[in-house]
Amino acid sequence: MIRARNLNRGRRASAHKTLTVSLGKFSYPIHIGENLLPQAGSRLARLGFDTAPIVITNPTVFKLHGWKLCKSLQAVYGPISVIHIGDGERYKDQRSLNKIYDGLFHARADRKSWLVAFGGGVVGDIAGFAAATYMRGIRYVGVPTTLLAQVDSSVGGKVGINVPQGKNLIGSFHQPSAVLADTGVLKSLPARELAAGLFEVIKCGAIRSTAMIGYLEKHLSQILSCQSEALQHIVLESLRIKAGIVARDEKEKHLRMVLNFGHTVGHAIEAATHFKRFKHGEAVAWGMLAALGYSMELGLTPREEAVRLASLIDRVEKMPSLKGIELSELWDALIRDKKFRAGDIQLVLVPKLGVTRIRDCIRRQHFKAYLKHFLRRGKRIF
Amino acid sequence: MIRARNLNRGRRASAHKTLTVSLGKFSYPIHIGENLLPQAGSRLARLGFDTAPIVITNPTVFKLHGWKLCKSLQAVYGPISVIHIGDGERYKDQRSLNKIYDGLFHARADRKSWLVAFGGGVVGDIAGFAAATYMRGIRYVGVPTTLLAQVDSSVGGKVGINVPQGKNLIGSFHQPSAVLADTGVLKSLPARELAAGLFEVIKCGAIRSTAMIGYLEKHLSQILSCQSEALQHIVLESLRIKAGIVARDEKEKHLRMVLNFGHTVGHAIEAATHFKRFKHGEAVAWGMLAALGYSMELGLTPREEAVRLASLIDRVEKMPSLKGIELSELWDALIRDKKFRAGDIQLVLVPKLGVTRIRDCIRRQHFKAYLKHFLRRGKRIF
Repeated sequence: MIRARNLNRGRRASAHKTLTVSLGKFSYPIHIGENLLPQAGSRLARLGFDTAPIVITNPTVFKLHGWKLCKSLQAVYGPISVIHIGDGERYKDQRSLNKIYDGLFHARADRKSWLVAFGGGVVGDIAGFAAATYMRGIRYVGVPTTLLAQVDSSVGGKVGINVPQGKNLIGSFHQPSAVLADTGVLKSLPARELAAGLFEVIKCGAIRSTAMIGYLEKHLSQILSCQSEALQHIVLESLRIKAGIVARDEKEKHLRMVLNFGHTVGHAIEAATHFKRFKHGEAVAWGMLAALGYSMELGLTPREEAVRLASLIDRVEKMPSLKGIELSELWDALIRDKKFRAGDIQLVLVPKLGVTRIRDCIRRQHFKAYLKHFLRRGKRIF
Repeated sequence: MIRARNLNRGRRASAHKTLTVSLGKFSYPIHIGENLLPQAGSRLARLGFDTAPIVITNPTVFKLHGWKLCKSLQAVYGPISVIHIGDGERYKDQRSLNKIYDGLFHARADRKSWLVAFGGGVVGDIAGFAAATYMRGIRYVGVPTTLLAQVDSSVGGKVGINVPQGKNLIGSFHQPSAVLADTGVLKSLPARELAAGLFEVIKCGAIRSTAMIGYLEKHLSQILSCQSEALQHIVLESLRIKAGIVARDEKEKHLRMVLNFGHTVGHAIEAATHFKRFKHGEAVAWGMLAALGYSMELGLTPREEAVRLASLIDRVEKMPSLKGIELSELWDALIRDKKFRAGDIQLVLVPKLGVTRIRDCIRRQHFKAYLKHFLRRGKRIF
């Protein structure tokens, strides 16, 4: 289902890896490695992209790395149009989407045009949604620049925007035609941003791979100090895990649900704090802790397994606390969730690291009482 | 690929037909017949829709037929939410789309919710696009109320909105989960609206079925006076033709292009007259005449075949004239077309009724000179 191979180009043997996300006629390759940006043009040309793309990005990313990408694309395609949207989650809205549409019309983009989504998750989601809906769908290539975007949003095809009623409530599924994940770019990330992405990596390990958990425990300091090989390893392995799940379940159904480990409570924590206090990954980390604690309480997860994961999370970053979050706010956010409210309460639990179980029909009152306890005690529940 | 069967309910044998559009896991049934609205609730319940839908419609349609649909839905599902958008092509815009989104949030629609698109092509396209993008895609059922919508927009899954830059430029492909085409509703259509839809029926015959052309020649007066059996026959046969093509080519590729017979020049005529003078079907009728004449000039279509189709078109309705349309405006609109501008000029031609040929690499100057001649002479070219 998933194939990874070394490209072995010249002397930098094993420097770059390619992973194929197998989705039938929507299959696409992900190239992973350090210093991919300067090769973007030639790599994409080899993949069959034969006209100049339009790059969607934000000023922060573009200032840091734009010249490398554009120089490489220009060498192959000539002058490149660039459309900027604002930097930050609050720009993942209809105004930015319209700005992209306008830019595409202005650039006379047609059905054969293609976009490059160059930035973090916000750019990826909104550029992907623009690609999904411009002239009923054009191609796009992801060039994610944060760890979170590289391991998470570059696989799955979930694209969309936020609306006042909630995050990602308008969107669709649209697979990229290729993804280039340059792990070298991650070195310019703020430490907190890197840590937040790492929580998604931990999630991938928690649901599918004890080897990954072991690797993280052993190499955490190398990762946090952006050692190339370690970064490349965790990005590749996370993508392999995620792509394996998505390939078997393209649209969000049962299997794919396991990727939501930590996300149910995590989303609610983000919403209850108005998306200000926590980075997404941090909220997911708290969400994983909440799910672990609940699973422990149900007698599903042995204490030592829960503690092992909690310790790893703890070593990554001192996260913002849960202090001051009211149970009522958290609960309201939880039952407004688009996954949650479609029927019964379901939670993804991890009875053992690397193994998941979907728990249906959770008793509302019981879970609410647990959350009250969790909000008060935080990590001290372990 | 396409199955039609009589439902033979009670004494009204052969009154209702069902056609399945075969698109793998996106296959769906189309029910065709007179007086289907009062059975909408029970038919949809039998198809597995088990929660109350949200109806998207416009005030004109709703005043005429809304009570029949809603009574029937309410009997099965209880109270029904209705979201109104304005009546007319100019309401197929982002404002109406946002109005639908807001209505859906207000009604607390979730991923398991489903919409009923109750109206003509505008309602179908915009409600379908709302369904395609609300929470990354929910189900919708088409209940088309114009002849054009019944034969054209209910098959193909093309959904979208207009933007200032052009028609249908933002959208996607999203198949309905079922379509109910009540031919009885067509009796309340203004004569010109019915005629405009009939041109799409003629197109279906022209590209695939001389039997259909023969039927139209023979039964035109029954159709124009809304005789039930004749209406049902042409809707069923048109859908059969269109569904057969779409089933083999879901996303717009080569085969599906034949459905654009008459549309290339037709769209340009609409755009050059700012979508005011012609109904879509009328513009397509002029477009078919333009394509036929050009094909005659290329020596591809014998004069008698072209004259036969032109005479049928002529008998349907006295269409608004081409008078005053400047060649430059028409040409500009033509080369702005999203199909047209992606490379070479391509035209769908009909060398013989029922048979199509896609003509690539049309010489621009030659075609432009022909259009100048066509604008001046109109139907007199035959």
